[in-house]
Amino acid sequence: MRLAELSRRSGVATATIKYYLREGLLPPGRQINTTTAEYDEEHLRRLRLVRAMIQVGRVPVATVREVLRHVDDDSLGLTVRLGAALWALPQVPEPEEDDAFVRAAHREAEELLDLLGWSNAKLLTTISPAYRSLVVAVAAFRRLGYDWETELLASYARLMHETAKLDLDFVETHPSEAEKVETAVLGTVLTEPILRALRRLAQEEESARRYGFE
Amino acid sequence: MRLAELSRRSGVATATIKYYLREGLLPPGRQINTTTAEYDEEHLRRLRLVRAMIQVGRVPVATVREVLRHVDDDSLGLTVRLGAALWALPQVPEPEEDDAFVRAAHREAEELLDLLGWSNAKLLTTISPAYRSLVVAVAAFRRLGYDWETELLASYARLMHETAKLDLDFVETHPSEAEKVETAVLGTVLTEPILRALRRLAQEEESARRYGFE
Repeated sequence: MRLAELSRRSGVATATIKYYLREGLLPPGRQINTTTAEYDEEHLRRLRLVRAMIQVGRVPVATVREVLRHVDDDSLGLTVRLGAALWALPQVPEPEEDDAFVRAAHREAEELLDLLGWSNAKLLTTISPAYRSLVVAVAAFRRLGYDWETELLASYARLMHETAKLDLDFVETHPSEAEKVETAVLGTVLTEPILRALRRLAQEEESARRYGFE
Repeated sequence: MRLAELSRRSGVATATIKYYLREGLLPPGRQINTTTAEYDEEHLRRLRLVRAMIQVGRVPVATVREVLRHVDDDSLGLTVRLGAALWALPQVPEPEEDDAFVRAAHREAEELLDLLGWSNAKLLTTISPAYRSLVVAVAAFRRLGYDWETELLASYARLMHETAKLDLDFVETHPSEAEKVETAVLGTVLTEPILRALRRLAQEEESARRYGFE
């Protein structure tokens, strides 16, 4: 297809597509003559992924380039490739202070992984941004003087494990490894706002069931 | 307690506490003499809530004031008071365009609520920011050309309902209505990053279980 059709089918303006091409976020089309290039279904798929990250996920252009580098690296095994692509996405800010709360949160997070039997995640604690984000969030909670049982945290974690199974089941409906990795990135960028909205809706529903409308 | 002790127990600097007092985010202490005021446990609790919203949730000061107005309004029933406080928190941005995708997403979201039997949430669709956020997120997904079964969305929603039950069970461990509303606000601000981190950790665990490390 030509640029105009790529624009029509993706809903992305041609000027924006040209910008993505210049920035290397989209591979060049097959040059037919000096002024015309031909694009295929893979360009369309990649364009949707880039647009989702930039417009919906508000991921900076340099970060998109980094994520795509991992998406395209077929020298890696699937777990590592998935992990690298997802880890390149924006994360929760690092802790400003490595204080007693952060150290206690580390111990609590490790206990939690043991309690859950997440032995694979435990192997990744030194390098996983998700693990660091958890430690930061738990430390913030404790610093404010809130007292949560680790068992409550484990109940939330088990529900998130069910969510992750749905995520990966959906990823697996795609045939190629490249599409699997792309879908995982998209799933993370696009479904986080969906889950956040569903959780708040569910709170409204459950709150009305328990306390009625008055 | 005096200002210095309030600062020590909350971990918030005295200059910051004075700023919150000036901005009306914290009620004034009981004046003992012209230079000294006395604060109590309620001040400490309120200070932690304000700090959580501003420092962890990055909620703007004007919004914090709005949320607190609802937290303190005991003329309302609990569901409405909870809803008003949570609705005042920052939401997903409004849709820029009310196009065919947004209209289709409205229909899809209403179908979803029917499928789930969330009849209370359905009564709130015209006013709930959570519902609008869901519509925006679903429209973004569809606009990018992704095809999700409503049944998959419903599976995520059911897991979020289990999450909401845990949220409210925790809220109910607090005796007074004011504390219940405060805890709900805190839960939303503080547990969103925890759930996000747990979901990503669970994805790593599940991905390693399915595909190993290579």
